[in-house]
Amino acid sequence: MIVFEQISQMRRWSETARGQGSRLVLVPTMGSLHEGHLSLVRDAKKRGDNVVVSVFVNPAQFAPHEDFAGYPRDFARDRKLLESEAVDVMFHPSVDEIYPEGRESYVDVGPLGLPLCGAFRPGHFRGVATIVVKLFNIALPHVAIFGCKDYQQLQVIRKMTRDLDFTVEIVGHPTVREADGLALSSRNIYLQPAERQAALCLSRSLRLAGALVKQGEKRASVILDVVRSEIAKEPLVHLEYTNLCNPENLADVEAIDGIALLALAVRIGKARLIDNMLLEL
Amino acid sequence: MIVFEQISQMRRWSETARGQGSRLVLVPTMGSLHEGHLSLVRDAKKRGDNVVVSVFVNPAQFAPHEDFAGYPRDFARDRKLLESEAVDVMFHPSVDEIYPEGRESYVDVGPLGLPLCGAFRPGHFRGVATIVVKLFNIALPHVAIFGCKDYQQLQVIRKMTRDLDFTVEIVGHPTVREADGLALSSRNIYLQPAERQAALCLSRSLRLAGALVKQGEKRASVILDVVRSEIAKEPLVHLEYTNLCNPENLADVEAIDGIALLALAVRIGKARLIDNMLLEL
Repeated sequence: MIVFEQISQMRRWSETARGQGSRLVLVPTMGSLHEGHLSLVRDAKKRGDNVVVSVFVNPAQFAPHEDFAGYPRDFARDRKLLESEAVDVMFHPSVDEIYPEGRESYVDVGPLGLPLCGAFRPGHFRGVATIVVKLFNIALPHVAIFGCKDYQQLQVIRKMTRDLDFTVEIVGHPTVREADGLALSSRNIYLQPAERQAALCLSRSLRLAGALVKQGEKRASVILDVVRSEIAKEPLVHLEYTNLCNPENLADVEAIDGIALLALAVRIGKARLIDNMLLEL
Repeated sequence: MIVFEQISQMRRWSETARGQGSRLVLVPTMGSLHEGHLSLVRDAKKRGDNVVVSVFVNPAQFAPHEDFAGYPRDFARDRKLLESEAVDVMFHPSVDEIYPEGRESYVDVGPLGLPLCGAFRPGHFRGVATIVVKLFNIALPHVAIFGCKDYQQLQVIRKMTRDLDFTVEIVGHPTVREADGLALSSRNIYLQPAERQAALCLSRSLRLAGALVKQGEKRASVILDVVRSEIAKEPLVHLEYTNLCNPENLADVEAIDGIALLALAVRIGKARLIDNMLLEL
């Protein structure tokens, strides 16, 4: 595995690989890799000839009050994990390399970045869309893979790609969970043991809602009440939002019409965690 | 000359040309071509193997009160002119092709788009940056050429290209003028004969300022007073702004330190015209 820290090296490698007819797959990450990321990497290997994994904790997608400084980083461990997956290139630039002084341009996807996490993380999706545009222009992928756990992020990236006429194929990879249902997240490391146990209410509330829908329930009010009361049972867990929405434009729906996204975000101790499920009638 | 109206055709052509090692030069225009545009095209031909000229009146860069609907359009004439310059491809998409319903993403370069024309044309440079990103992703140029008459636009595009890690080389082409000094602009067509005569005060005021600087004058207050009083002599001409600024970040300067940009915008009848000059000590 090659490790590049400079934009120019990364781009030259990708240009050469493309010139030789290689199909390039990019897996953008913020490092602190877990089985969820590795599942994306394994998917990536099937979808092209060469896999590039970027590891970059992107300051532009953290609001000032958020955990940018404390976000877990472990380059040596990430490198070993990617090597063991036979990744071709790990792109690991510094913040100064990606945002030298005076970088002010940004990409905004408009209304799609406003509800759900966008309402609680001002500027977050602008930061996400901007770094992804930059990574597309640096790593020149044919395909890029993102986890469905960050469902709004995935939709924001799909929209940015389409709206700005990038030709990169965007793949959403299913959420990977622990055996007990907790969605994998680098932020799970923040959880104390009792919080880790309490965090099971996220996936449990989604499953309960899913069961209700299987019984024919369509109404958002009823479905969201189930989620809210399940979360409310855990005093360590503070619900930030739960919404039932159109899976394309993320606008709230009053009832499921075919398919809807049930999404939620909570705070547990130091951690902010999200989860979601697509509900089909 | 091939004329493409569809994004997919244009991109396929560019991908093929690039694959064959061709160096592609893009000249983005809003049509209604004049000698200024053709001068860009001739420059383009020297800088690469194939020249693509886009002709698209971009609604996203017009404010609601501006002249989008009435902006001059003459496809047949533009096509003939480009054919006579042996351009390889004219890309002439419809508004629906470029902005199908639901296109909401945009690119913003931040503070550089705020002064000068940005202060009088809200959203203008956001519209410019966005269409140029799209054209880069559609026509896949190695080089793109823009006129220096739209100096702020040129700097906005340079900044967007650098900030978002596009590899397109941006070339600024010197302003082309009529024999009497008027900068060529598609909007000159709006001028009635008396207005056309009055419009000479733009280039005249810049020349007067330039002569003053040659004599050693550095102070913005003195230089701008010369411009203002020259413009004030023409009752048909309404000054929108005149600024002396840093040619890189476009921030106002109090005095010329090495080099400065003198820029102005006026309204004459139906027309809004701009002009500028770099002043070097």
